[in-house]
Amino acid sequence: MLVVQKYGGTSVADADRIRHVAGRVIKRVRAGDQVVVVVSAMGNSTDDLLDLALQVAPDPDARELDMLLSTGEQVSVALVAMALKNLGQEAVGLTGQQAGIIAQGRHYQGRISRVEADRVRAELAAGRVPVVAGYWGVNEDQEIFTLGRGASDTTAVALAIALGAGRCENCKDVEGVYTADPRIVPTARKLKDISYEEMLELATQGSTVMHNRAVELASVYNVPILVTSSMVEAPGTLIRGEADLEERNRVRGIAHDSDVAKITIRRVPDQPGIAANIFEPLAEAGVSVDTIVQNSSEGNLTDLTFTLARKDLRKAESLMPAICETVGAPEFTSDANLGKVSIVGVGIQTAHGYAARMFRALFDAGINIELISTSEIRLTCIISADSVHDAVRALHTAFELETAVTG
Amino acid sequence: MLVVQKYGGTSVADADRIRHVAGRVIKRVRAGDQVVVVVSAMGNSTDDLLDLALQVAPDPDARELDMLLSTGEQVSVALVAMALKNLGQEAVGLTGQQAGIIAQGRHYQGRISRVEADRVRAELAAGRVPVVAGYWGVNEDQEIFTLGRGASDTTAVALAIALGAGRCENCKDVEGVYTADPRIVPTARKLKDISYEEMLELATQGSTVMHNRAVELASVYNVPILVTSSMVEAPGTLIRGEADLEERNRVRGIAHDSDVAKITIRRVPDQPGIAANIFEPLAEAGVSVDTIVQNSSEGNLTDLTFTLARKDLRKAESLMPAICETVGAPEFTSDANLGKVSIVGVGIQTAHGYAARMFRALFDAGINIELISTSEIRLTCIISADSVHDAVRALHTAFELETAVTG
Repeated sequence: MLVVQKYGGTSVADADRIRHVAGRVIKRVRAGDQVVVVVSAMGNSTDDLLDLALQVAPDPDARELDMLLSTGEQVSVALVAMALKNLGQEAVGLTGQQAGIIAQGRHYQGRISRVEADRVRAELAAGRVPVVAGYWGVNEDQEIFTLGRGASDTTAVALAIALGAGRCENCKDVEGVYTADPRIVPTARKLKDISYEEMLELATQGSTVMHNRAVELASVYNVPILVTSSMVEAPGTLIRGEADLEERNRVRGIAHDSDVAKITIRRVPDQPGIAANIFEPLAEAGVSVDTIVQNSSEGNLTDLTFTLARKDLRKAESLMPAICETVGAPEFTSDANLGKVSIVGVGIQTAHGYAARMFRALFDAGINIELISTSEIRLTCIISADSVHDAVRALHTAFELETAVTG
Repeated sequence: MLVVQKYGGTSVADADRIRHVAGRVIKRVRAGDQVVVVVSAMGNSTDDLLDLALQVAPDPDARELDMLLSTGEQVSVALVAMALKNLGQEAVGLTGQQAGIIAQGRHYQGRISRVEADRVRAELAAGRVPVVAGYWGVNEDQEIFTLGRGASDTTAVALAIALGAGRCENCKDVEGVYTADPRIVPTARKLKDISYEEMLELATQGSTVMHNRAVELASVYNVPILVTSSMVEAPGTLIRGEADLEERNRVRGIAHDSDVAKITIRRVPDQPGIAANIFEPLAEAGVSVDTIVQNSSEGNLTDLTFTLARKDLRKAESLMPAICETVGAPEFTSDANLGKVSIVGVGIQTAHGYAARMFRALFDAGINIELISTSEIRLTCIISADSVHDAVRALHTAFELETAVTG
């Protein structure tokens, strides 16, 4: 089988771990598989480079940030390829450019437009293990575009698709996908498998196990992803197309995120076009808005609340006076210390009682709900940041995830 | 005027110095010059990357070493470009690949074959300061080749030639080229100018102010190089074509190198082809031999001595038994603790008395001469490593360099 194995920053954080990864890849090759390796930057090196940029310029230019940050993966690529060759395995390190990862869009938030995999195919055919830089590609003019934090997962899935690989393996410092974060819920269980949709909701709602764009891409092309440990030998979690029938209508996992802020605009005149007038300026400033809730208040006036990442709050607040003036709203309020907790499972929205059971569990735990948002397979409550861990534990117990038969 | 300014690792060692470099470039642009910047890796980052490679593999693969080390200059490029933009100067960081530095040869010891400067020219025409990665280029297959330690100087000269720049400026942590190393000879004077040939001999014989390949290249295309301080405003040293007539027949500077080892092969049968039999295996193993001296000993037997860098001695010694057997020599000896000291000046070999004066000065200082080698403009004595500093001071005094009229 041809597999694409992706190793994250923790798995290549130092020379010892890099040699360990090389040994793991070689074992796989000797077992008869063809392996393409995708690597992230070592440990915290991306953050270190970002720090350096901020020392040089308070608001570093996005193009040059891409030039800077892309070096992190290139370092890992070179070291992993060296380690493989040192252990007698033919290998070749490839930059995003050499591996044909073609990107487009805006700097520092590029997207992969296609993969020109000829070089990678040729290296495989020559018996070499291609070690490819995650996280970035180049456009037609050889300009470097990074793909957003965590996007090495996306590089791996895109390569798997281009090569027709049987599987993408995400080798991490965790053993798989759990019913909740095991650091918060000690009784959390590792799932045997999970559907793309469920994983996507978990990822979007705060689980850091997989990058959501990678899951999305894998689901479109139906490439299975195995989330597995790069450190220990243990069965991982397979992310794949359809949930088994008996696993439908169940809460599969609890996601959480303690980094939420909200802004509420009071008494907005409810006219066509107000949403555009509010959210276009925010989008142009690069502020990502998550949940949006609109309540009617009095007459034709409405309250509109949206959530965003805490780091974007100051930027958003600076835009709000002008936005309020445009839409004719007298004032806005904000809250920086929120979090969210979600239950995820195919079919739970159409099934009875999940919402009620969730709200009851939070109420019993003394947790106040600020906002509610839902999708077909998810229920999310916005709560105070300091009650997030309690909420995760309460929901894990309420939905009996520690004792569930499946997973 | 169009100038290419090269900033070494010390000049971009941290965020403060990078901002200082940016300010210096901008001042030059505002004065009406067009500036292309070439940068080295920050401070000791190349050594740090090398250390990392050695932790992963004891004998790291040269191709992957190029992949690894080239990131150092890319980091500097991004940061300097950010700093320029932050100060309001349009700029663009360019990798060796983007800047069209085309290289060939062996990995880790590549050579620039040509510069495709279209992109750099276009950026200049658009009013942007191109900030180019020194030290490396790519071949036709986009494979990365580093150009040898110190080769960012060569990148700068090659770019100056390709662009038809009026001058290449080497901006360093020293103020220019001195009659001797000022750390050893406090009375050493900064030279106003020096010829390519003299600078080349100084560089080859141990001066680290300029990389010898850069000087060689500049001399072929007659590009003047100004060696100047990146820290303080002070006139530097201009390296240029012909020495002024009145500066001929003078010792211009003293070079030294405390890192010399020698191997002597005793009683080699003096037959055609022995030199090839000795030096081919060493060259294949990557050992660079410096001075070679052959003395007749008894009958048709000869003693042959060569010097090399200390780091290569163990490798060379391991090859010697086989080499001795091939050429029929009974034994070899080696000495790891040597150094060399050179006097350099156009015309000194054809003028009278320089050699005698040099030997007398060393004798008076109690320094024993192990080997002598000469070129048209240089006299070099191999001496013990621990007498090198005394020798430099003795020669500086003997040739009255502290009081010379010129320079």
